[in-house]
Amino acid sequence: MLNNADSEFVAGLEARLSPGAVRAVEPRDVEEPRGLFKGQGAAVLRPSNVAEVALVLAACNAARVPVVPLGGGTGLVGGQVMSEGPVPVLLSLERMVGIRDISPENNTMTVEAGAVLADIHTAAEGAGRMFPLRLASEGSCRIGGNLATNAGGVNVLRYGNARALCMGLEAVLADGTVMGGLKRLRKDNTGYDMRDLIIGSEGSLGVITAAVLRLYPVPAARQTGFVAVPNPAAALALLHALQGVLEVTGFELIHRMGFDFLAETGFDLRPPLVADWSVLIEVSGAAGLEEALAGAMEQGDVLDAVIAQNEAQRAHFWALRETIPEANKRVGSISSHDISVPVSDVPAFIARAEKEMPAALRVNCFGHMGDGNLHYNIFPPKGKSRDSYADERAAIARLVFDIVAEFGGSFSAEHGVGRLKVDDLERYGDAGRLTAMRRIKAALDPAGIMNPGAVLRGCETL
Amino acid sequence: MLNNADSEFVAGLEARLSPGAVRAVEPRDVEEPRGLFKGQGAAVLRPSNVAEVALVLAACNAARVPVVPLGGGTGLVGGQVMSEGPVPVLLSLERMVGIRDISPENNTMTVEAGAVLADIHTAAEGAGRMFPLRLASEGSCRIGGNLATNAGGVNVLRYGNARALCMGLEAVLADGTVMGGLKRLRKDNTGYDMRDLIIGSEGSLGVITAAVLRLYPVPAARQTGFVAVPNPAAALALLHALQGVLEVTGFELIHRMGFDFLAETGFDLRPPLVADWSVLIEVSGAAGLEEALAGAMEQGDVLDAVIAQNEAQRAHFWALRETIPEANKRVGSISSHDISVPVSDVPAFIARAEKEMPAALRVNCFGHMGDGNLHYNIFPPKGKSRDSYADERAAIARLVFDIVAEFGGSFSAEHGVGRLKVDDLERYGDAGRLTAMRRIKAALDPAGIMNPGAVLRGCETL
Repeated sequence: MLNNADSEFVAGLEARLSPGAVRAVEPRDVEEPRGLFKGQGAAVLRPSNVAEVALVLAACNAARVPVVPLGGGTGLVGGQVMSEGPVPVLLSLERMVGIRDISPENNTMTVEAGAVLADIHTAAEGAGRMFPLRLASEGSCRIGGNLATNAGGVNVLRYGNARALCMGLEAVLADGTVMGGLKRLRKDNTGYDMRDLIIGSEGSLGVITAAVLRLYPVPAARQTGFVAVPNPAAALALLHALQGVLEVTGFELIHRMGFDFLAETGFDLRPPLVADWSVLIEVSGAAGLEEALAGAMEQGDVLDAVIAQNEAQRAHFWALRETIPEANKRVGSISSHDISVPVSDVPAFIARAEKEMPAALRVNCFGHMGDGNLHYNIFPPKGKSRDSYADERAAIARLVFDIVAEFGGSFSAEHGVGRLKVDDLERYGDAGRLTAMRRIKAALDPAGIMNPGAVLRGCETL
Repeated sequence: MLNNADSEFVAGLEARLSPGAVRAVEPRDVEEPRGLFKGQGAAVLRPSNVAEVALVLAACNAARVPVVPLGGGTGLVGGQVMSEGPVPVLLSLERMVGIRDISPENNTMTVEAGAVLADIHTAAEGAGRMFPLRLASEGSCRIGGNLATNAGGVNVLRYGNARALCMGLEAVLADGTVMGGLKRLRKDNTGYDMRDLIIGSEGSLGVITAAVLRLYPVPAARQTGFVAVPNPAAALALLHALQGVLEVTGFELIHRMGFDFLAETGFDLRPPLVADWSVLIEVSGAAGLEEALAGAMEQGDVLDAVIAQNEAQRAHFWALRETIPEANKRVGSISSHDISVPVSDVPAFIARAEKEMPAALRVNCFGHMGDGNLHYNIFPPKGKSRDSYADERAAIARLVFDIVAEFGGSFSAEHGVGRLKVDDLERYGDAGRLTAMRRIKAALDPAGIMNPGAVLRGCETL
């Protein structure tokens, strides 16, 4: 069993850490963006280096005190807020924000886990490179959290998710063991892939303290198009046609509901074309998009299209896409679903889900179609509040996830499991894989102090 | 302690498996390409499906009988041959060779672990797609082995290694637990990354039985160049110049020694240009290579260049590169080193190693410079046999690896640890990471039956 982090325990730690390493818990430390969970915590511990992280974890492990790691707090599945059980300490990486090294020659950057994603972008651009992880929350999320949750975003199609963008990792296990691994190597085949095991484990196996990130040359040229399509099947045909001749780096499907929500919630953002289904497309290279879209128009897969003529227009197209999550938040979803299916099944999934969903509810379906990843979010009818649908949330999620499962899909394509989807993992996950995960958890965190209740439940009794 | 697989144990298994599931051990089952290890085995078990694999492992686990998984037997670090300790059973995937599903629409292929890599290429091409894993041994290696060792090859620069090319995985753990995971999803963020943990674990955590592979569109056009450069630093400058304007998919550095070895060992393969250092370059797209090389020539980074004018010429360029390992084998290396350093440090590494290496020995240095991965192989002087240098092997490897370590590099970039590099892992690996690896091994294979002696030693006593 785990113990509360009482004031004596916190004071004992404070005495062993550098000045300023302990602060009081603030509201932002125990909130999450959708307001589904309310966390708790005895104190926020702010180590200033990996040795202090190791000290904190070893002490918590010895005392069987739970630890909740904190990044930017932007996660959407409650992984950052422990609302039940013994009172934990909150371990924030907010003082470990250094960018230690940038090598444009090697296309790598070494950063501490608390570095804010937008600061990483700025540093990469300053060195004539880019870091391709792009998310709506990039102004406040921290790279340690991005890696702990294996974040996705709008560039996965070409560059992969956070896991694919991490070359080396340093992390601390529950007992304070430091796993060094800040290698700046594109290839290193020396034993088990501990890096990728920690990435995506959502703070339940250890704390990420630093990482070597993979940079890329800034594409010499790119073209961005906003395209109206007759339906999702046409969008799929368009994706394949483009991939045959161009390097597609982004392919974002957007239903008209997203633009309605922007207008309804006070955003002055209007799409350049109005259709039930639109696609925001980005490709590498200076030419070829217009010709390819003209060809697709002849095939009937494109109704109309606008190609950005300048950076301002490109920024406008992307703002339309990237502001939809904020509009969703203002409208207030009953239930949000970050799902994936095989790319080729996206149209069939949308058709099937539309058929099953109660007609009175509003569906905002948008996302990374090139990855087979849709944000399939359900809202109350206009003028009604989500609160009156609280009792239906579970049934709606079940309905969506059952359809996803029919297609061999995933109930969490990029957001992770956190606390919101622990039941879903038990229901939809492979039994053998869950068995193996529990063995890994018990091996690396036998007392179960690391982010209890996230990903797997009941591990503190192992 | 582990037990010998005696004839009674094998007979008991045979009675429970499908007809033809047991055959006698043949010489090829206990040999490896470099002749450094000689294996042993009581019998070759050839399950025909995942249930039979699970049955075999559960029985071996209960009886504490060691299991050595067999793919195509082409591994270069002795991972496939257990030469010491109790007599194991050899578990071959040779009867599980099915290609279950190819979806060009989804860019995926589902295969059984025993499928030969070349057959996978043929199947992908038949569907108008390509599978980018390309290795010298592709005619005989099996995909299960490629994944178990996280194989690399000549396309890693653009497409990643075997791990990056695997979307879903099915594997059986030591106790017979089947981990299902044949998802055809580009994104699935639901718990620990068991897939990537099994990939690269070299049969020491479980047996891979099937996989979903990632296919790619066949590039509409490509250009292949054979380029003489003045030195490795110029090759690095050329790499960066090309990456700024083209998509570089291959960048193979080749020292003149490789061509000398081809001539010396009877291969009728002559390079189109002769220089101390050459680079074989491949880029996507129909144009741009000639112009870029002309620019590099003006900068002094290119001495001379030939661009392949047809498929036959391209095949010739690649045959030069891909036949060097066979020539090396015929010459007989004292010690071979599959190392990596940060890409930007490749020239400094080569200069440093050249300075330290005894002048009488011959060095054949070639490989995937775009990944920072060199095959740095040491041979006796012409006319002498490697046998007379057997006593110096360890010291030479140590010399090379110590220099690699100075550059923060890896002693095994793509070949893995196997049995050959267990000592090196203990010497050069991070202590915390090794601790974590041992915990993982104990958690997933507590009796230590899986490929004992590979990757980690002494795990059967845990």
